[in-house]
Amino acid sequence: MAQTSENTLKVAHQAFEYLIHGLATGEWQAFLDILSDDVTFWFPMGKYHGQNVGKPRVKEFLQYVSESFNSGLNLTSLDHVTSNETTVVFEFRDEGLLQGEPYKNRIAISFDVCDDKICSYREYFGSDGKSY
Amino acid sequence: MAQTSENTLKVAHQAFEYLIHGLATGEWQAFLDILSDDVTFWFPMGKYHGQNVGKPRVKEFLQYVSESFNSGLNLTSLDHVTSNETTVVFEFRDEGLLQGEPYKNRIAISFDVCDDKICSYREYFGSDGKSY
Repeated sequence: MAQTSENTLKVAHQAFEYLIHGLATGEWQAFLDILSDDVTFWFPMGKYHGQNVGKPRVKEFLQYVSESFNSGLNLTSLDHVTSNETTVVFEFRDEGLLQGEPYKNRIAISFDVCDDKICSYREYFGSDGKSY
Repeated sequence: MAQTSENTLKVAHQAFEYLIHGLATGEWQAFLDILSDDVTFWFPMGKYHGQNVGKPRVKEFLQYVSESFNSGLNLTSLDHVTSNETTVVFEFRDEGLLQGEPYKNRIAISFDVCDDKICSYREYFGSDGKSY
């Protein structure tokens, strides 16, 4: 069991690093590679609100994010990491320009790990895009 | 260390039970009692958006919630619980009537435990109040 939890944390930390890299640079391949083909992703609002199923759909979402934040969205603080044997939650803050306007938010992302992939994840918003 | 994590989980589960009871019934005393006097609470939006400091302020917020959901807000699914030595995150879904209109949401609440109290917590929204 300890080993399973360790692997879950390891895979989730790697995925988080790739996610942050993608947000900052628009380079999403490493993050996409660590998702299972049948990944599901829950997003809180807008065009991609609700359950998004499959890697092509997630890829489309990530491209949409990088078009909206075309100068990059940067991690400013990783506040908490909590986990159990299958799931890891990252609470963090990020900052950038959303279509040219200053943007700041608090985010919680919860990754479910299956073997060495993220098989589902959920995003939660802790603020309004204007402060944190 | 194991003991600390166990205590953190125990206190957080108790607080979560009291929170759910408060949301359903409007009876908040048990939840208030498990908060430290200097508790801080981050809320994502509206009148209480941002950092709320101290138990009187949290009490005011909780009364405001119960006035808005005056027939109660009910837990429909507790989906994930993750933790480390100091922090426990509950991902859940709830449902009720917001000023008479159907309301559903996904929520993540992250409790920080100090000894036998919740000394800070953060709420995150995973949906728009209309679906989950």
